[in-house]
Amino acid sequence: MALLQPILNIAEILHKKGVNHALISPGSRNAPLTIALARHPGIQAKSVSDERSAAFIALGMSQNLKEPVVICCTSGSAAYNYAPAVAEAFFQEIPLIVLTADRPKEWIHQHDGQTIYQTDIFGKHVKQSFEIGADYSHPDSVWQIERSVNHALNLAMTEPKGPVHINIPLREPFYPLENEEVRFSPRARDIKRIKPVFQLSKEDWTEIIEKVIDSSRILIAVGQEELNSALSEVLAKIQEEFNIPVLGEAISNVGLDSISKHDLFLGGDDSLLKPDLLITIGKSFISKSFKTFLRKYKAEEHWHLQYGDHLIDTFQSLTQIIPVSPLDFFSKLFADIDYDNFRNGDMEERDPEFKNIWFERELKARKYVESFFQADFKTESFNEFLVIKQFMEGLPDNSQLHLANSLSVRYANYIGVEAKKKIEVFANRGTSGIDGCVSTAVGAAISTKKPVFLLVGDVAFFYDRNALWNRYLPENLRIVLLNNHGGGIFRVIDGPSKLQELEDYFETVQSYNAEKTCQDADIEYVKVNNNEGLMAKLSLFAENSGKPKLLEVDTDSLVNTEIFKQFKAGFKAV
Amino acid sequence: MALLQPILNIAEILHKKGVNHALISPGSRNAPLTIALARHPGIQAKSVSDERSAAFIALGMSQNLKEPVVICCTSGSAAYNYAPAVAEAFFQEIPLIVLTADRPKEWIHQHDGQTIYQTDIFGKHVKQSFEIGADYSHPDSVWQIERSVNHALNLAMTEPKGPVHINIPLREPFYPLENEEVRFSPRARDIKRIKPVFQLSKEDWTEIIEKVIDSSRILIAVGQEELNSALSEVLAKIQEEFNIPVLGEAISNVGLDSISKHDLFLGGDDSLLKPDLLITIGKSFISKSFKTFLRKYKAEEHWHLQYGDHLIDTFQSLTQIIPVSPLDFFSKLFADIDYDNFRNGDMEERDPEFKNIWFERELKARKYVESFFQADFKTESFNEFLVIKQFMEGLPDNSQLHLANSLSVRYANYIGVEAKKKIEVFANRGTSGIDGCVSTAVGAAISTKKPVFLLVGDVAFFYDRNALWNRYLPENLRIVLLNNHGGGIFRVIDGPSKLQELEDYFETVQSYNAEKTCQDADIEYVKVNNNEGLMAKLSLFAENSGKPKLLEVDTDSLVNTEIFKQFKAGFKAV
Repeated sequence: MALLQPILNIAEILHKKGVNHALISPGSRNAPLTIALARHPGIQAKSVSDERSAAFIALGMSQNLKEPVVICCTSGSAAYNYAPAVAEAFFQEIPLIVLTADRPKEWIHQHDGQTIYQTDIFGKHVKQSFEIGADYSHPDSVWQIERSVNHALNLAMTEPKGPVHINIPLREPFYPLENEEVRFSPRARDIKRIKPVFQLSKEDWTEIIEKVIDSSRILIAVGQEELNSALSEVLAKIQEEFNIPVLGEAISNVGLDSISKHDLFLGGDDSLLKPDLLITIGKSFISKSFKTFLRKYKAEEHWHLQYGDHLIDTFQSLTQIIPVSPLDFFSKLFADIDYDNFRNGDMEERDPEFKNIWFERELKARKYVESFFQADFKTESFNEFLVIKQFMEGLPDNSQLHLANSLSVRYANYIGVEAKKKIEVFANRGTSGIDGCVSTAVGAAISTKKPVFLLVGDVAFFYDRNALWNRYLPENLRIVLLNNHGGGIFRVIDGPSKLQELEDYFETVQSYNAEKTCQDADIEYVKVNNNEGLMAKLSLFAENSGKPKLLEVDTDSLVNTEIFKQFKAGFKAV
Repeated sequence: MALLQPILNIAEILHKKGVNHALISPGSRNAPLTIALARHPGIQAKSVSDERSAAFIALGMSQNLKEPVVICCTSGSAAYNYAPAVAEAFFQEIPLIVLTADRPKEWIHQHDGQTIYQTDIFGKHVKQSFEIGADYSHPDSVWQIERSVNHALNLAMTEPKGPVHINIPLREPFYPLENEEVRFSPRARDIKRIKPVFQLSKEDWTEIIEKVIDSSRILIAVGQEELNSALSEVLAKIQEEFNIPVLGEAISNVGLDSISKHDLFLGGDDSLLKPDLLITIGKSFISKSFKTFLRKYKAEEHWHLQYGDHLIDTFQSLTQIIPVSPLDFFSKLFADIDYDNFRNGDMEERDPEFKNIWFERELKARKYVESFFQADFKTESFNEFLVIKQFMEGLPDNSQLHLANSLSVRYANYIGVEAKKKIEVFANRGTSGIDGCVSTAVGAAISTKKPVFLLVGDVAFFYDRNALWNRYLPENLRIVLLNNHGGGIFRVIDGPSKLQELEDYFETVQSYNAEKTCQDADIEYVKVNNNEGLMAKLSLFAENSGKPKLLEVDTDSLVNTEIFKQFKAGFKAV
């Protein structure tokens, strides 16, 4: 028999471990894996030629499906094209399962085709890299394959989740004989790792509760985090009933009426806003003002909730890592303190002063944002910041919003998402690269029935336009392309905007618009370059017409910069 | 002063070490390097947004200019997008100088933007990776920067040449003060490494000469190699006067009437072709038949000429590495044996039998190729193999031909390039990836006044279409796109062509044609989909019209496969 049973069994084990989707990039060396994945009845396999894009599509799928997704490529530099997405998956803790076909070791660096050093090719950006031997005949090899695949999948799905790499050397023949039947052995082993429940000891919990009760200036801040309604509810109650302000950014999916305009209002004399106790959850924060604020006005204590043991001290004030789920932590915290209050006759209600100071600033900023756009709309020059405002307000309830790096996510963070709309927000903030924002949104749209909106600038869009070069673009995909013909962010940030190199080496002016790209990809294309009819176009754009759509917002980068400067300066003058 | 003098001096040292060109990808973290490279009067800097493409463009430039070319990117996943080209440069021994900006070490994996593990990120695919400290104030740090840049450049330019990586952590501020003057210190140190001349001892040389004189069945085979007229001349004399057959493939630039149709004629009973002594130069061979032949009929002795000490035993018969230049080796070999013959009254002329056997096969194959196309042209169905034949015959003298992976380079290898035309042939056969073939050709076209022709299939073309997304496309660029709407190679090779997965997972059928891509990139577009007027179109296409051009050859993949099968089967039947 030509095809190797242990290789076929990889697909069977993967499926037993929860894999339902695979993205394959075509190649010859990975043919046995391709056949195994394509024929396995439990796995839906797609073929995407550009590995860079394929890996980001898989990332978007895994993010949405909340399950491991496989990417599989041939030997050689193909694997390196996965690397940007693998790094993003590592820092965003997404279980990407990377299968790279390889030549047997003895053929590495021997002037034979498609052969590079693939062992440990992703460095520290995978949880672990597994290497299988090229000999599949000895029973010990079969055992190694089985346990490695089990080990890799268990690891990928253990908190903190993350990508794993399995390098699979394959010898010819790669293809089954004609009419050879491919069978998956139901006896392929699934070695489970039971998921532990993270709990705290009574002593530690008592200390935590006491500290919370004793602290009058507590701030809860949420970095990048998944949408979780139960968590939102309990945080809302804590904010409301305990007077503890909760801060969340556009990508925190905090889902309550929280502090969200901090990027605008922080930066002056913020001493009154300094927390004694800072409790954070989630991953990275976008707002540079917020990070600078907390590094300047350091909290006395900073607790961060995370499963892993990698010590991340973003604000240079970390005192304690608490390895439990945010939902468990805050639910128990609320219940226990609520009961304590009840026992004490609710007499010791927390002073709302600290919360009030934060919300005074917040409300002032919100009012300013509203008034700024009221004044601007229809009478002022057409600019992308205004379009984003209108676009974000018009987003349908329960839709998804993907924010590309790097100006789009920043703009959106000023404007924010209305909590009650229950919009899920995503962004590749693990590495903050522009290299896969479109592909990630495509992966998301493939995996959900919700409308998926991507807000993206022209550099990030064209960089990753191969995201659209496949046969899987779904009708729920909606791309809003902010085309200012170059890297607009470099005009907005102070340093480069005054340099002689601005246009040529920072902004890197580019002339493309997306019309032809859309024709090639069979995407409905709409262009907007003035305020007239903007609202109507936006609402038409959101509607389903059976095809993916792209709305190109063609603006002048000088006007955008001027408006954004006015926006920032105007607030300071208030 | 805001900008750091040691960072500015990197540009000065680079220029002193022979760098005249840099490709910068825009970013903020790399701003100090961008400013240094852009303002240095001796360095021409270009800005290309997609790092994957930028690195391959630089590779094409370095290959042509025969000097080190710098690529420079910001921190984060940007560096990983360089990796495919870095691996290609490593195996093709091209001195790519990779400068990656980084956050200072203390900010790695701390949930701060654009930060990944960049140390040693290219693994074994650079000659060395250098890491600079983030402190530029201590004199020892300045010394470290100077010597590291010197070390890196010396290493990149030492045989075997190759890519080097310098990781450069930078702290804010990244930008000069307004009106701050940027000065390059002429005292920045250039620590030279004198280039050694590789010579052999008298004893070793005597042994070599004796062995050559004593062997009656010698084959000289040339893998991927640069065009070198002096070498071509001496090889031609050795073949002619010593009756030693020389074998060279399309990418060997062997420049003489050598054995070139081996991919077609090897594979039957080849026992009479077995050499006693095999002498090889250059890098990889394309022809699988040739590799299989030599692994089956192993030479008693196999000498490979290479500078480095990495042991590459492609044919599993290597007996001796000879670390001298091919030109020196063969020139001296010819001179010494010629003198020996003269001294001996030219009586001991080598028996031409072995050469004759090789050339009989060669001539039969050549005749077959000619007759196959004679029969086919104009009357037969339109197919890409025929177009390649016409195209390659029509190539102007002294032009460049870039062959993309993977079907294009294989097709072209059957047809070959006429020696007398002095056409330089390139292909990314270091890793044989499809990921940068277009960009490499763009880099070449930027660096030469010769017409640069690229022969590329549709998968490789669209994969790397960002090669065309920059402001530097020169008028001497000519792309011949073989569009069979999928990975045609998978229909041609035996294994997958019979699988149910062929179309969906191997060929990966795609519907794009290049017209819109060309409109976006301002490239003159011509399409051919039948034999009529093909010759006229090809010759018009080769002419200069002040703009880059693309000729799209739209064929049916079923017809192509059929013709190619006929071609191969027909020869066996002869």
